[in-house]
Amino acid sequence: MKNCLIHAKTFARIAPRLKGLEDKLNIILMDDNGVFSKASTGEVVSEPKPEIAFGNADAFFGPSVRNFLLAVAGGGQLDWFQSAAAGIENPGLVMIGKAANKYTTNHTQSEAMGEWALWQALDYFKQGAGHRASQADKTWQRRESREIRGSKWLIVGFGSIGASTGRRVMALGGEVTGMRRSQGLAEGADRIVPPDALMAELPKADVVLLCAPHTPETEGMANADFFAAMKPDALFMNLGRGALVDEPALLAALDACRPGHAALDVTLVEPLPDDSPLWAHPRVTITPHDSSQTDGTVTGADDTFLDNLARYLGGQPLRHLVGKAAFD
Amino acid sequence: MKNCLIHAKTFARIAPRLKGLEDKLNIILMDDNGVFSKASTGEVVSEPKPEIAFGNADAFFGPSVRNFLLAVAGGGQLDWFQSAAAGIENPGLVMIGKAANKYTTNHTQSEAMGEWALWQALDYFKQGAGHRASQADKTWQRRESREIRGSKWLIVGFGSIGASTGRRVMALGGEVTGMRRSQGLAEGADRIVPPDALMAELPKADVVLLCAPHTPETEGMANADFFAAMKPDALFMNLGRGALVDEPALLAALDACRPGHAALDVTLVEPLPDDSPLWAHPRVTITPHDSSQTDGTVTGADDTFLDNLARYLGGQPLRHLVGKAAFD
Repeated sequence: MKNCLIHAKTFARIAPRLKGLEDKLNIILMDDNGVFSKASTGEVVSEPKPEIAFGNADAFFGPSVRNFLLAVAGGGQLDWFQSAAAGIENPGLVMIGKAANKYTTNHTQSEAMGEWALWQALDYFKQGAGHRASQADKTWQRRESREIRGSKWLIVGFGSIGASTGRRVMALGGEVTGMRRSQGLAEGADRIVPPDALMAELPKADVVLLCAPHTPETEGMANADFFAAMKPDALFMNLGRGALVDEPALLAALDACRPGHAALDVTLVEPLPDDSPLWAHPRVTITPHDSSQTDGTVTGADDTFLDNLARYLGGQPLRHLVGKAAFD
Repeated sequence: MKNCLIHAKTFARIAPRLKGLEDKLNIILMDDNGVFSKASTGEVVSEPKPEIAFGNADAFFGPSVRNFLLAVAGGGQLDWFQSAAAGIENPGLVMIGKAANKYTTNHTQSEAMGEWALWQALDYFKQGAGHRASQADKTWQRRESREIRGSKWLIVGFGSIGASTGRRVMALGGEVTGMRRSQGLAEGADRIVPPDALMAELPKADVVLLCAPHTPETEGMANADFFAAMKPDALFMNLGRGALVDEPALLAALDACRPGHAALDVTLVEPLPDDSPLWAHPRVTITPHDSSQTDGTVTGADDTFLDNLARYLGGQPLRHLVGKAAFD
């Protein structure tokens, strides 16, 4: 019997798919009040000590995330942790990664994030803000818009989010340059260029999308020089980490209309503080780090967990395993 | 020498591509004040009497569209008219169609209109209105959104706009049912169904897109029964003609939250009157019949005109020719 910790909301969704595992798993639920209980009896559990834990949006975006982190990372028995995220830099995840023998990630968020990027680009190209202002004024004002078809995209940090976005852009007739260290062809990009090509590539792009991880090399990479190299009417987007962007430099660049607009799903400090000028800037769209939060992502993460759970219990290799060294 | 009427703005774009035709074409320009002049000399022309005319957005969405229509349809010499539109029901176009020996349409608008449909669907699925309200309030509120991936679309009147939209939706992992009289497979649809399947198909669709022409059969087809058959959270879109929709029935249906939202690029009366409740309804997005008005469409229409012009002058068959009977 393995102690397996999941959120009560998750259990409500996947319980039918856990049938038949009653003799292998002691399922412990955490509710939104941070109270733990046995799924089989409802009995409250004061020290859950999970050996297996599934850290998805129900747990991480819920009100008792702190209880979850303490139980998982501090239980002293964690053998395997399944994350619902692709990234591993979040401090809570690092704490868990250090505690777990096996840590697996999840890449189903990338599809939702690719749709987010397309949404933001269409809304900018189609003059969404202008159209909405006209509707509010009851004004029938035609506006010439731009097309994704024929647009040039630069995707900085070309991993699973970049590929998911790039596949969509290419299907719509756009042209995609992916930037990453490992060269060669990649699905979702017309060509791959190395990071040192950045300043040469920026002036060519109609859309620049950051989806790099946060490392000492990428911190503050989108700075005054970066923005000055962009086209005046280009769109800048960040789906990576807030720390990649020098926010004062971005605000100054937007005031100078180069780039034309910024769409940010991540910011340096999250939640974005009330006094941040990003909130009210007319050339900024903010979404609250929820680009991946879709029905499809929830289902996809459940599927990944259940697939890996069957592998775990069957003694087979887990999918999307991250080496321990990643958390050092 | 053939008198060939085009808008001055169009000439500014395509003049280099008309080089070498000076002995075949007497190019007459119309400016935004409705004044006609010879392109070669600048001399004002009081009665242009075109034999060839190119009716694109510069002419049709400009301030002197009336002068253009009168000159083209009333000149008495019109041999060939190139439209920038796919549709032919507009009263001005019908007048021209009756006057012209040859009338050719253009299908490059479909690409832009497919992007419009995707834009509207993403904005609804991603809770665009909610996200914008949160940003205006400086509130970091995560929202779960839906995905195009896995969504079911019903496209009523499956022609070039439907195919353009359907190709995009399928590339993003959605499922497309196209409805039209001629059966069989079609690019951009997973399956094609006949018009009498409408009431059976409506309850299955997450997105219903109208792009049928306006005929006695289609007039008011989106009525109370139509909306009552839709899913409560489905999106209704109209890229066809305003007359396809019973607007009071749509408003009542939206008040009952079935469908969840309507995105309309066309309305029964255009421009939409100030007192229309559609303007301010929280579940309605209005764009002013400009879904096709993109940089790519302008260029595409120029390309079609120049290609057909070469065919015309070379005595070859024109592309996208419409039979005279269509205007009876």
